[in-house]
Formats: sequence, C-alpha cells, structure tokens
Amino acid sequence: MILGILLSGRGSNFAAIAENVLTGKLPCEIGCVISNVSSAPGLERARYWGLNSYFLDPTAKDRVAYDAEVIKKLRAHNVDYVCLAGYMRLLGAEFVNAFPNQILNIHPSLLPAFPGLHAQRQALQHGVRFSGCTVHFVDTGLDSGPIILQAVVSVLPDDTEESLSARILKEEHRIYPEAIRLLCERRVQVEGRRVRILP
Amino acid sequence: MILGILLSGRGSNFAAIAENVLTGKLPCEIGCVISNVSSAPGLERARYWGLNSYFLDPTAKDRVAYDAEVIKKLRAHNVDYVCLAGYMRLLGAEFVNAFPNQILNIHPSLLPAFPGLHAQRQALQHGVRFSGCTVHFVDTGLDSGPIILQAVVSVLPDDTEESLSARILKEEHRIYPEAIRLLCERRVQVEGRRVRILP
Repeated sequence: MILGILLSGRGSNFAAIAENVLTGKLPCEIGCVISNVSSAPGLERARYWGLNSYFLDPTAKDRVAYDAEVIKKLRAHNVDYVCLAGYMRLLGAEFVNAFPNQILNIHPSLLPAFPGLHAQRQALQHGVRFSGCTVHFVDTGLDSGPIILQAVVSVLPDDTEESLSARILKEEHRIYPEAIRLLCERRVQVEGRRVRILP
Repeated sequence: MILGILLSGRGSNFAAIAENVLTGKLPCEIGCVISNVSSAPGLERARYWGLNSYFLDPTAKDRVAYDAEVIKKLRAHNVDYVCLAGYMRLLGAEFVNAFPNQILNIHPSLLPAFPGLHAQRQALQHGVRFSGCTVHFVDTGLDSGPIILQAVVSVLPDDTEESLSARILKEEHRIYPEAIRLLCERRVQVEGRRVRILP
C-alpha cells in the first residue's frame, strides 16, 4: 500500500507516520510528500529521509488547477491513500472525489466538537473536561467526514493552549499510524458516515 | 443546602441523587420534587420516600405563567439549587434568571457534541468512538451552559441505542451526585462559561 503525504508545516504527524514506515512497523510505503509551502520543515525532513518530496507552488493558480496538479503527482506515484498532515488548504470537491474515502486527516478535538482552526483553544474556552483527537476520512465539509479512530485526553485545571495541544499531539502520533495500520490490513469498512473496524 | 428536583419521567437521576442524600452521603436535603406529568414514576418514588412532591399541571398555562408557578413552589421550599432530572420542558429566560447558575442539568453526551433529543442515537449515527455525559449549569440555550463535570464512555462496535444509553446512564448516576457534592462543598466557581473546581 502506498501513501501520499500532504503537509504545510513541521509535519509532526508525517514524522510519526514515517518513523513507523521506515522502521518496518507499518506495512506500507510513502510514495511521495508534497507541500504547498516551500520552507515547510516537514518537507525538509522528507528530503533528509530520501523520500520523493515536492514543493508544488500554489501561487497564481486557482484551487481547481492547483488541486489537479497535486492529484497528478499523487497518481504518478500510484498513491492508494492520501494523508493530510497539517495541510493548511481546503480540498475542493474534485480532489475529494478523485480519492473517495482514501483521504485521511487528523484533527485535534473529539469531533464533531470543535471543528476548524484552533480546536484546542476552542475546547479550553468552552470549558470541556475532556478533549482529544480524531482520524477521519475527508469529505467536502469542514472536518466532517467518517471517523476512523479517536483518542481522549483530560483537560486539566491549569491547562494552557500549549499544554493541552502537547497532550493531544502525543495521542495524534499514536492513532494516526494506528489508523493507517487498519487500512493496510483492510480492516476499515465505511458504511454511510459510520466506519466499522473489522476484527 | 437545599435541592429542588424537576422531573417528567422515571427520574433515574433523581433516584441516584436521592439515594445519596437519604443515606447521608451527600450533605444536603431535597426540599421538593416537582413534576409536570402527573403519572411520572419519579414522582411516585418521591412520594414513597416521603419527600415533598408536587404535580404542577401545565395545561392551559403559557410558559411564563407555568414557570412562575414552579419558581414559587421552589422558593417556598427555600431551594438553593434546582436539579433537572429528565424534565422535558425548556426553561424560559425568567426561570433561568431567577436561579442564575443555580440550575443543573445532565445530558447524555460529551457536550458541545450532540445537544438536544436522542443524544445517544445522534452519537451512534455520527460514528464517534467515544461519548459520555455532561453535568452543566442551565442557561437559556439548548444544553449550552457552563460545564461542571463530564464522563467518557467508549462506543462499542455493536452498540445499540439501548446498550450505549445504559453505559452512559451508569456514569450519569455517578457524576450528577458528584457535581452536587462539589456545590455543597462550595468548590464550584463559574468564570464566564468556564467552571473551575476548587481543590
């Protein structure tokens, strides 16, 4: 099974996935890593690891044209699943439909609570006692696709956005590779908006 | 500290609270139990326990008039906190403002996810991996007030609405009395929409 990674920044979730792949813990390979930001540290890391790494420049392209370029690159590497890892662009319907239930994202909240930006800050401001993270398939909505895995973390009385984010990130780095493992083992079955994990 | 209970049905959360009060595990008393449904089993149970129990008939009264009647009864019993326990009526702004941050409710989801009716069914249909329950202060929105306590439960692959509801209910019966204990101990401090539990 071949993964394509899209990232815009440090790509810590990309690193968690790559470490599992490169050490043989995940039975798949990384076909390519694509970034829309030339200076993304995650892209630098991908190059260091000798992965096929591309900066695709979104400047002066509309979304459809840019997405088409990204899709073409993913196809050229025979990617089965696309993993968003801090990719700070919304995917158009053409992109989502080009990889139906084959695009994964991780979001730092227990969706459907707190979609969108600054999920950890939203959780703190709302005063919830628990938050967490969610690996989900990407659909055309905002963080709204079928949920594959979630993990829960406590919100502590003196948590700051930073401390809560760090606690959630640790769980992100655990469940994102775990979700990919389930896909590798063909144990993920999508039924409408529910995902069944086969035993 | 004196509690007033409002219920419309079996009142299983009322029973969980009352058992803690009547066995001396919660340092407060139940001033009165009020129902808008004459046949509510919870009201029957309150009578059996010898609590001050009232059916207040909402027929042919508008919400403001009915709420005023309920408020009057709660005041007559010097109630400090009002506990909703399956009370199937929305409270008007007059009611909420008559007991600012003194009305508690329990909701069978990890709010802000799945407010409103059939929260467990909503959770199953959404395909979340975790759900739970929330004790919160009541404001004029739908299940939107400041959160006091939450508990998490796993959603299992073969859960039905009934099995998930039962698992959540067990936690409801634990955290609702626990929230009341915190109030009795004056350890609950509301700061905007966040609730701080004092050590």
